Amino acid sequence: MKNLLSMEHLSNEEIIAILDRAQDFENGMEPNLKHSYNVANLFFEPSTRTKTSFEMAERRIGCTVIPFDAGFSSTTKGETMYDTVKTLEMIGIDAVIIRDKEDEYYNELLEGINCAVINAGDGAGQHPSQSLLDLYTIRKEFGKFEGLNITIVGDISHSRVAKSNATALTCLGANVRFLCPPTWAGDFEAAHSWDEVLTDSDVIMLLRIQHERHSVSKNFSKESYHEEFGLTPVREKQMKDGAIIMHPAPVNRDVEIADELVECERSRIFEQVRNGVFTRMAIVETILKGRE
Amino acid sequence: MKNLLSMEHLSNEEIIAILDRAQDFENGMEPNLKHSYNVANLFFEPSTRTKTSFEMAERRIGCTVIPFDAGFSSTTKGETMYDTVKTLEMIGIDAVIIRDKEDEYYNELLEGINCAVINAGDGAGQHPSQSLLDLYTIRKEFGKFEGLNITIVGDISHSRVAKSNATALTCLGANVRFLCPPTWAGDFEAAHSWDEVLTDSDVIMLLRIQHERHSVSKNFSKESYHEEFGLTPVREKQMKDGAIIMHPAPVNRDVEIADELVECERSRIFEQVRNGVFTRMAIVETILKGRE
Amino acid sequence: MKNLLSMEHLSNEEIIAILDRAQDFENGMEPNLKHSYNVANLFFEPSTRTKTSFEMAERRIGCTVIPFDAGFSSTTKGETMYDTVKTLEMIGIDAVIIRDKEDEYYNELLEGINCAVINAGDGAGQHPSQSLLDLYTIRKEFGKFEGLNITIVGDISHSRVAKSNATALTCLGANVRFLCPPTWAGDFEAAHSWDEVLTDSDVIMLLRIQHERHSVSKNFSKESYHEEFGLTPVREKQMKDGAIIMHPAPVNRDVEIADELVECERSRIFEQVRNGVFTRMAIVETILKGRE
Repeated sequence: MKNLLSMEHLSNEEIIAILDRAQDFENGMEPNLKHSYNVANLFFEPSTRTKTSFEMAERRIGCTVIPFDAGFSSTTKGETMYDTVKTLEMIGIDAVIIRDKEDEYYNELLEGINCAVINAGDGAGQHPSQSLLDLYTIRKEFGKFEGLNITIVGDISHSRVAKSNATALTCLGANVRFLCPPTWAGDFEAAHSWDEVLTDSDVIMLLRIQHERHSVSKNFSKESYHEEFGLTPVREKQMKDGAIIMHPAPVNRDVEIADELVECERSRIFEQVRNGVFTRMAIVETILKGRE
Repeated sequence: MKNLLSMEHLSNEEIIAILDRAQDFENGMEPNLKHSYNVANLFFEPSTRTKTSFEMAERRIGCTVIPFDAGFSSTTKGETMYDTVKTLEMIGIDAVIIRDKEDEYYNELLEGINCAVINAGDGAGQHPSQSLLDLYTIRKEFGKFEGLNITIVGDISHSRVAKSNATALTCLGANVRFLCPPTWAGDFEAAHSWDEVLTDSDVIMLLRIQHERHSVSKNFSKESYHEEFGLTPVREKQMKDGAIIMHPAPVNRDVEIADELVECERSRIFEQVRNGVFTRMAIVETILKGRE
Repeated sequence: MKNLLSMEHLSNEEIIAILDRAQDFENGMEPNLKHSYNVANLFFEPSTRTKTSFEMAERRIGCTVIPFDAGFSSTTKGETMYDTVKTLEMIGIDAVIIRDKEDEYYNELLEGINCAVINAGDGAGQHPSQSLLDLYTIRKEFGKFEGLNITIVGDISHSRVAKSNATALTCLGANVRFLCPPTWAGDFEAAHSWDEVLTDSDVIMLLRIQHERHSVSKNFSKESYHEEFGLTPVREKQMKDGAIIMHPAPVNRDVEIADELVECERSRIFEQVRNGVFTRMAIVETILKGRE
């Protein structure tokens, strides 16, 4: 695997190999790289958990992280993504981790770039490292994917998490359903009421209402969204035994999920963050080893 | 000591222990931590010396510093301080050092957060690491606190340095006085003329006029402030033998203090910066050891 | 050599010594410093390649890099460059690398500052590390400077690269010529047509049209600049055998140079970036050794 751009490029075998390696790291196994590599994190959109998680993961597998400040780089003078990444490659960077607001920004990097590219989120496209940590979290919980009912709730059409996860989970044998307001389903077939999905879901995966992605009309009300599509304490009680709650975060408390449920027993929201470090160690190691 | 939030939480013994440990570090002693820790510096307000000083201190005691860019973090999407810190904790951060514009922002971190919190300035509240380095500077100079006349000059009511220092110095036996324009005293009793405090002060501690904290009215004139409350060469000559000048910086030259006095013989302004690294090594080490 | 501020301060011998040391590093030689030093990169203007290149070079010679965020530092509260650098010095920084929009910002650092200052670009002044990497690139190509025809093309009067390179290359025996629109020559004598310089140039060194430096009038048209002064495929074919193309980048594709020529066989544009790391390793090591 030379790059990690989209879940759609990964076979089931490649996915399982990354999850197994993440498990190795959680079990305390040491990284297995021939030498120390140089990496850079290019985040052209705000991020706390994804960026910090990669920063931690990279150091834990022995990489040197060269700082890159997107808001103070030459991209502000109009330099293209290609020229920026090619420059970093010539400086000696072995892998770049990129988040950008453009869908498939990475297409201009497919030719002429030799350093590895790891997609940390492209516009409303894919977010494969989030997807892999979600898969890791689910497998850790249930030991399998086959036959699980997984309900993804929220702004499906604009969510890169929804797309990445739907692709992969379906391939791995899970039964993926969607729940959202009628206008938010995009090309997906979705339920529009909790009644259809609440009681038989093994995983309820909430998506963030992305105010910053213009997905929300002027008529949107947090209160009425919460009432109709939010996970409330009443709904949580109806979930089946052993079912879990997930959210890629940051959470809008009392919108997607009631404030008091964020750290409830069923919630794996902060556990997902913890799992993200092991998963990203596995991702970056796998990509770098693919070049040795 | 699990966190360092306010000087008011520290006993005299705890203060002295930190100052002694800072002295150890200045004497070249090695840090004494069982392993390497991960820390992150969350500065939601601009800072040069406090942030850079912590960055240096953390590395000198063997910590790994995970970069955090406040202006490009998920807090810009509305993520709460609690969720931000909890996220960093799950990523593997052992201690966060935080500066924020809200007074007592740390109250929402007192429950549910396991990583250590070190306050690097909260709004118009406290600034304990600055206070401890000031105490270190004074003790290094005089060998004691008892009986020293210490005059704090400037915008007392909005200054976190004034509050942190007044609390601690009084407990340690110093005689703390204030000098400021009548409207700037807040709840403190203050002199309004240099005549009352100039010649018998052992320490003159100038505060920064914080334009950015709206403490200054439209009628404020730098020239007239300097004339009435600034430390001028004429006033410096009247200071007693061995008396010193302090300022937490950044200095507004020719406002709080005449340009030519910033590096004069009595000035400890840049020496304070130097002492800050030893003091912060002691602070971070103490907090991390409290968790071993 | 205590600081590196301007190419005008360097003798030919000092230049050659740095180029030789850069060659050592490209050959894989180890750095030769007595201990690990602390450095900080103060970039008050956006930069990708210069900043990242210094970051890499500093780590490769064993330095600890203390992060400094110009846009979030106390300079935003009005702190002077002197006070900022003096503060970093007291914190334990051994060398600062500075880019600033003010010409000769470093003049206020010549007295009172003990840490080393390396100029990474001052306004429309000098850019010595870029100049040295350009010299390194030329020498690697031709093995000499004497007698080479080197043509610098573009916004000469506002370019710090043009100034730094013209000074040094002339001293080293090269024949430096300029090509630019009549109003852009400043104090330099310049050709205004490719006919005068194209076929006998050994090096064509293109400069970036710096939109952000207000050098471009409202009447400026990218298309007509490219037609008249850009390096087009037709012109490239007329260049002499073995002649090379250079550009400090970021490149405005299809303005200074046709898009398809950026990575053509004659182009050394990305090779310059690669050479920059070796050159900056030599610069920082030389400056730090000058203090041992």
